[in-house]
Amino acid sequence: MATALPKGFRATGVSAGLKPAPQLDLGLLVSDSPCSTAAVFTQNRVVAAPVVVSRRLLESHSQAIAGVVFNAKNANAVTGQQGLKDAQAMEQFTRQVVGLPDQQRVLVMSTGVIGVPLPMETIRAGIEKAARSLDSGSVDQLAEAIMTTDTHPKVVSRKLSNGAVLTGVAKGAGMIHPNMATMLGAVVTDLKVSNDLLGRLTREVCEASFNCISVDGDTSTNDTFAVLANGQAGAVDGEEFEEALHGVARDLARQIAFDGEGAEHQITIEVSGCRTFEEARSIGRTVATSPLVKTAVYGHDANWGRILAAAGRAGVDFDPSQTDLHIGKTQFLAQGRPLGQTAEVEKALFAEKAVELHLKVGDGPGRATVWTCDLTPGYISVNAEYRT
Amino acid sequence: MATALPKGFRATGVSAGLKPAPQLDLGLLVSDSPCSTAAVFTQNRVVAAPVVVSRRLLESHSQAIAGVVFNAKNANAVTGQQGLKDAQAMEQFTRQVVGLPDQQRVLVMSTGVIGVPLPMETIRAGIEKAARSLDSGSVDQLAEAIMTTDTHPKVVSRKLSNGAVLTGVAKGAGMIHPNMATMLGAVVTDLKVSNDLLGRLTREVCEASFNCISVDGDTSTNDTFAVLANGQAGAVDGEEFEEALHGVARDLARQIAFDGEGAEHQITIEVSGCRTFEEARSIGRTVATSPLVKTAVYGHDANWGRILAAAGRAGVDFDPSQTDLHIGKTQFLAQGRPLGQTAEVEKALFAEKAVELHLKVGDGPGRATVWTCDLTPGYISVNAEYRT
Repeated sequence: MATALPKGFRATGVSAGLKPAPQLDLGLLVSDSPCSTAAVFTQNRVVAAPVVVSRRLLESHSQAIAGVVFNAKNANAVTGQQGLKDAQAMEQFTRQVVGLPDQQRVLVMSTGVIGVPLPMETIRAGIEKAARSLDSGSVDQLAEAIMTTDTHPKVVSRKLSNGAVLTGVAKGAGMIHPNMATMLGAVVTDLKVSNDLLGRLTREVCEASFNCISVDGDTSTNDTFAVLANGQAGAVDGEEFEEALHGVARDLARQIAFDGEGAEHQITIEVSGCRTFEEARSIGRTVATSPLVKTAVYGHDANWGRILAAAGRAGVDFDPSQTDLHIGKTQFLAQGRPLGQTAEVEKALFAEKAVELHLKVGDGPGRATVWTCDLTPGYISVNAEYRT
Repeated sequence: MATALPKGFRATGVSAGLKPAPQLDLGLLVSDSPCSTAAVFTQNRVVAAPVVVSRRLLESHSQAIAGVVFNAKNANAVTGQQGLKDAQAMEQFTRQVVGLPDQQRVLVMSTGVIGVPLPMETIRAGIEKAARSLDSGSVDQLAEAIMTTDTHPKVVSRKLSNGAVLTGVAKGAGMIHPNMATMLGAVVTDLKVSNDLLGRLTREVCEASFNCISVDGDTSTNDTFAVLANGQAGAVDGEEFEEALHGVARDLARQIAFDGEGAEHQITIEVSGCRTFEEARSIGRTVATSPLVKTAVYGHDANWGRILAAAGRAGVDFDPSQTDLHIGKTQFLAQGRPLGQTAEVEKALFAEKAVELHLKVGDGPGRATVWTCDLTPGYISVNAEYRT
């Protein structure tokens, strides 16, 4: 079923020839009126050209963003001055071809290989093709066009009480680690939302969604998550919007984590009893990036000591003798004391596709949920052969 | 050829039955006179019982350590109060059986699975067996007895100008990451060295050797590196000792990194142009733990953009437009500008077993060398099946 777009938005994905046809590789998302826009970007020191360009546009034109142009297969990162010129040209060309009014701008999001100049002829032809096929009916083609090693497109849509719609797309399967928005992602809505509220909520929501996932600990040079609100469906209660935006972002984030390169298991890590959310998330992230935990899940081996060892190097102060650990409903550690489990019980735990780890490290109020996947031979073959 | 021990030291490794016979799994190292001793331990919050016991002994008996008892296959970590009692019993039983004078003590080092109680009957029988086979001729059996997933024992020996000897053993193939001494390791010498100098040098040496390697980013609960000097060969110049200890530690560290679980490549990462050694090492470590860099090397794909992306998330401030990158002698990036290389050149670079990455990120004096290995399907199969 087609995933609906909010009022006033059109989207598309086309085959520009960056990937072998008929794969989609270039996407457009356009609003017919300017949007309140907020975004968060990668915190990597090595920042891709489209991130530089989009960040500047948000500083100068945050009330006048009317769309996003996306491409896959080439990240336009570590491409020097030429890369910056190319990202600017991509933005300019898009608004010319789409016919945006003078003051309006589009964000640029690129993903793919690092260090290779963008083939601008191909990009330009793709943008022209995309502009001709913009469609208010569905966002699905766009979600497909931004995929790299993703195995399926990632979309979410929610309807609010006043009939407004929130629709999000995201991509990301490798170089995924919680350090700001991790991946490419965009949420569009026809709600009326002030820029201030949008900015605050986008940052907050990101902390509890995209910053709570990890595939491999690698933070991309291109991570961008943007929320565009064109206001055409009027306003709702701030709390309802907040709840909906959290839900959409969390759903997209989980889709990314569970579609990690080579993933065979969906791992949810709940950490509680910390002083703060941040401490709980640090422990969760460290467990989520532990190759030893991830290979144990892959190997159906409930080698739970590795979970404790990973938690212990998270840089968070806790007392191992006050720690409880459950895998699913089976308890392995009670107040730091190991409870023996039979090999049969252990083996069965990771036979399920969905795995839940619950780690309680004290009595504090801080808790967090982190999502990841297992580390499999598939991850290695995808990444050993990614460019070839 | 047998690896020599310094004067007054005896060592052995026996099959106690922790691993299937005839594999060696329990080791002893004993000096016939008490040693000046220094050690560094894991910084993981979850600290194994033998680390707790050894750390206490160094506080109370740092001039009266006369040996080390080692076991593989079981880490005695996350084993609660019983684990502490077992580690103490291991220490006490060893000095009784070896017949050490009243005030002398031995350190305890365990490695293996976490969360399983130590089989004390087997350990006691093994210690008795080991005490009967102590040998001043060679350290090779001991090096073999502390192996877990290591593919070969790790030993180094050096002779100094006055005839004194430095001999080191180490183990470690997974859960290896630079955060304090990473693995089990011991260096013994018949040099006369003050406890103060030994303490300072041990910490310093560790920073530039064991803390500069990574296999998988996981920091063990049991990491211990100890240096024991019994003084029987007299003193040398402090600088000569420093240089020799650095050399022995670096050699052992490199052996560990290059024998990482599943390793097919030996990766040396040199980072220069930083403000400090610590900054350079942070960048080097982040590159060394990047699954994307490690799988690219495995796949013979000189996908150098991943090296930059990893460096960028190290938390070190540097200017990508001032950055040079070489793989071996081939330059890929000059002052932030990518230099195109042909696919043939790129493919050839990782065909060699030894790979060198040189990253220069500015003009500062800080430089560091970090050693690691590639991430291969072998790592996953070793760790998915480790306990079975």
